[in-house]
Amino acid sequence: MKEKEKPTRKRLAIYPGTFDPITNGHIDVLQRALEIFDSVVVAIAVNHSKKTLFTTEERIEMIKESVKNFNNVEVDNFNKLLMDYVKEKGAISIIRGLRAVSDFEYEFQMALMNRNLCPDVSTVFLMPHQNYSFLSSTIVKEVAQFGGDINQFVSPFVNQQLCKKFKTK
Amino acid sequence: MKEKEKPTRKRLAIYPGTFDPITNGHIDVLQRALEIFDSVVVAIAVNHSKKTLFTTEERIEMIKESVKNFNNVEVDNFNKLLMDYVKEKGAISIIRGLRAVSDFEYEFQMALMNRNLCPDVSTVFLMPHQNYSFLSSTIVKEVAQFGGDINQFVSPFVNQQLCKKFKTK
Amino acid sequence: MKEKEKPTRKRLAIYPGTFDPITNGHIDVLQRALEIFDSVVVAIAVNHSKKTLFTTEERIEMIKESVKNFNNVEVDNFNKLLMDYVKEKGAISIIRGLRAVSDFEYEFQMALMNRNLCPDVSTVFLMPHQNYSFLSSTIVKEVAQFGGDINQFVSPFVNQQLCKKFKTK
Amino acid sequence: MKEKEKPTRKRLAIYPGTFDPITNGHIDVLQRALEIFDSVVVAIAVNHSKKTLFTTEERIEMIKESVKNFNNVEVDNFNKLLMDYVKEKGAISIIRGLRAVSDFEYEFQMALMNRNLCPDVSTVFLMPHQNYSFLSSTIVKEVAQFGGDINQFVSPFVNQQLCKKFKTK
Amino acid sequence: MKEKEKPTRKRLAIYPGTFDPITNGHIDVLQRALEIFDSVVVAIAVNHSKKTLFTTEERIEMIKESVKNFNNVEVDNFNKLLMDYVKEKGAISIIRGLRAVSDFEYEFQMALMNRNLCPDVSTVFLMPHQNYSFLSSTIVKEVAQFGGDINQFVSPFVNQQLCKKFKTK
Amino acid sequence: MKEKEKPTRKRLAIYPGTFDPITNGHIDVLQRALEIFDSVVVAIAVNHSKKTLFTTEERIEMIKESVKNFNNVEVDNFNKLLMDYVKEKGAISIIRGLRAVSDFEYEFQMALMNRNLCPDVSTVFLMPHQNYSFLSSTIVKEVAQFGGDINQFVSPFVNQQLCKKFKTK
Repeated sequence: MKEKEKPTRKRLAIYPGTFDPITNGHIDVLQRALEIFDSVVVAIAVNHSKKTLFTTEERIEMIKESVKNFNNVEVDNFNKLLMDYVKEKGAISIIRGLRAVSDFEYEFQMALMNRNLCPDVSTVFLMPHQNYSFLSSTIVKEVAQFGGDINQFVSPFVNQQLCKKFKTK
Repeated sequence: MKEKEKPTRKRLAIYPGTFDPITNGHIDVLQRALEIFDSVVVAIAVNHSKKTLFTTEERIEMIKESVKNFNNVEVDNFNKLLMDYVKEKGAISIIRGLRAVSDFEYEFQMALMNRNLCPDVSTVFLMPHQNYSFLSSTIVKEVAQFGGDINQFVSPFVNQQLCKKFKTK
Repeated sequence: MKEKEKPTRKRLAIYPGTFDPITNGHIDVLQRALEIFDSVVVAIAVNHSKKTLFTTEERIEMIKESVKNFNNVEVDNFNKLLMDYVKEKGAISIIRGLRAVSDFEYEFQMALMNRNLCPDVSTVFLMPHQNYSFLSSTIVKEVAQFGGDINQFVSPFVNQQLCKKFKTK
Repeated sequence: MKEKEKPTRKRLAIYPGTFDPITNGHIDVLQRALEIFDSVVVAIAVNHSKKTLFTTEERIEMIKESVKNFNNVEVDNFNKLLMDYVKEKGAISIIRGLRAVSDFEYEFQMALMNRNLCPDVSTVFLMPHQNYSFLSSTIVKEVAQFGGDINQFVSPFVNQQLCKKFKTK
Repeated sequence: MKEKEKPTRKRLAIYPGTFDPITNGHIDVLQRALEIFDSVVVAIAVNHSKKTLFTTEERIEMIKESVKNFNNVEVDNFNKLLMDYVKEKGAISIIRGLRAVSDFEYEFQMALMNRNLCPDVSTVFLMPHQNYSFLSSTIVKEVAQFGGDINQFVSPFVNQQLCKKFKTK
Repeated sequence: MKEKEKPTRKRLAIYPGTFDPITNGHIDVLQRALEIFDSVVVAIAVNHSKKTLFTTEERIEMIKESVKNFNNVEVDNFNKLLMDYVKEKGAISIIRGLRAVSDFEYEFQMALMNRNLCPDVSTVFLMPHQNYSFLSSTIVKEVAQFGGDINQFVSPFVNQQLCKKFKTK
């Protein structure tokens, strides 16, 4: 195997999403990504037309709490084309979690569009642990809304924020 | 962002497959992987019960020809449990190309099983260029068998080997 | 085969849904469920954030009309976590109709979440007759809105209520 | 092969959609349809409950611009049941483009419903070129909104109208 | 609408398949195709590596029996690349029946490959009647093998040939 | 709710399959079924054309070992049309486990065919625990063949039989 001296450039990846709120499935994907890349930016895509339960600030706070013991993670938000944000940051890859087939199709379309917009950046799909393969922020909110027990799906801090929002417990 | 001094350990990935024969879709996935990992082993899974068109040696030769201008690529074959091979090699990830939904399901099942067998190793899914999103070794062989033109889907050397096998042209 | 004296406990199932309005596909699934369980509760999930065409009362009336000749059916509504409702009722299973792949994925996620919340309760998937395999309340409303003929997809009473709502005919 | 003298009846097809806006994928499907049918009506389904970016008039203008060099194409809109419109026009088929699995399921349901409503009219599925297999009006709008480059996915005129709407560039 | 005088060229389509044996689902798709095209060739793809229950001759005989009352149908077989056969025949389209998602994916891949090989020929997907949406030659053979009643899924002549093969009844 | 005195007829279900070998996923589905039905027959479909790793006798032995502590379970095999076997046994339902989308499609087709053959018998789909949602007999054999650790996926007795077959350990 020929070995070329690789430049010491940091390999940075962006993990974009809505994170409304961040779940244990997201954390699991992030941990996988950190084993592959030098550092990862968890980046909230701010989208004023999409109604979220938590404000951008609240979502950032919950992510920060969740990653406080991880190294090489930055938390950020962006309000522009993802590929422009990626180029600005100097990232080489986009991280996406994959769960179900319906996920897959949309992710596939976005990844192909992004590849057209920016051929140098790859989309890397990672799979959360099977315990989280049925988990989504939407399902977590549906259950939390009625006071259902979600402590195995989100961190204690996120759980507490959900209870506060829904005035349950 | 806290930054921990990362060990200078090489990040190695295994790209396993049958490669009967290697197509431009495989090459495209490999190139993507090389931007993320320090080095990649293209590893033929030798499976005596599965009938292949080309022998292991012929497949290795075609892969070697295809990657001769790439750095940091090794070509190998293995006849054991994938996860045992991965551990032996000291790799941190398995590379898989994703095209269609049917792919996705099987890949998903294998990735979950492999995660159970070896929790430290992640499966990384990459997407070939849209020009190859419908491409498979099987389809290439079906077309080549009747002398159809496949030069945009495989390298000239692989094309030539297919013609030889099928005695077309 | 060892046979244990089973307790004479009634086997009750919940068939939850929006039923906006109930279609012949729902009726078909209900009839199948009644052959398996001792009794079935058709239960409207009241969800104030989801906009429905019919009020809860109108939907209950249409379901009652549709099941008036069936034995062992109760019609109800609930405004809480499904699994809490199920436990309250003492049911052993949840009934879900399955039509298409997209159905399947969402149903799968919900069933896994529900199994986590309440491991004693199973989700039982039944398939409507092929004549209704393309049928949904949404499609019925789309067709009825423009005065299309839906009499083979809903009961005469539901048909009449749809015409009244849309002031067609 | 028995050959019956076919009546010289024109074979007309309807290509219904929202076209908000028309993309190169739509154009590609239309060109395929024109090779099969004598003439095609591109027909905007006016749906007052669905929020569109462009008005019906703007969408008609963009379609007209896009097809100005084609023969045997009419641009129209309708505000009734599709099958009633099809019968009124005397069309023999409905044209639908197929891209992904999620498309397929919905299309399948609609096609079966339409076949029930009007057994004489067939739904003909055509596939856009692979360059457009990931393309949708929604994705085009998402990218255009942030000033991303979409000139390979829509005509220059549509591109210009999108920039005007989003006040980008 | 500009109307160009169309050449009086016959519009011919190829309906390729294994037809082992032809089912009512195939017949239904063929009837739909005959409303769109001037004539259709039902063409058995002879594939010496794929084991069939019936010989090519037997399959041709069953198709001929099934279409004996149709006009503008030819029955043929070919042992070459489909696209070469299509060009030879001067056809403008390939007909494919679509049932389930798994069908769809494979059909999609083949259609994209064929479009690459021969850009002038379109693949037209048609949907069989919902009564046949679960029907395949494979399932028919599985049922017939054990003497199950298949008279609603195949013609009387095909039914009789299946009984003869399996020595049932 | 009207309550009709139900006849005291036993509600019997058939759980058919290849069980080559039985896995913990099968056991999990069986346990779910036993909560719903009075008794369940685990029935090996003997299919002489399908090559299995274990003989019918070996598979029966492994199932019997796995269910030895369950009540109301019978182990059997059949070599006829499933629906004929079901009628013979006087069962009211067929049990099927559902895992992935690809499963779902085939199961759906078979269930619709079976409903046509025998309208009185319903197919009941149950979902294994998420720990087994990626599990299949095929994957278990692939891993066991190379001496991979499968003790969390099959019972100790099945594990031992697999080791014996593959002469591993």
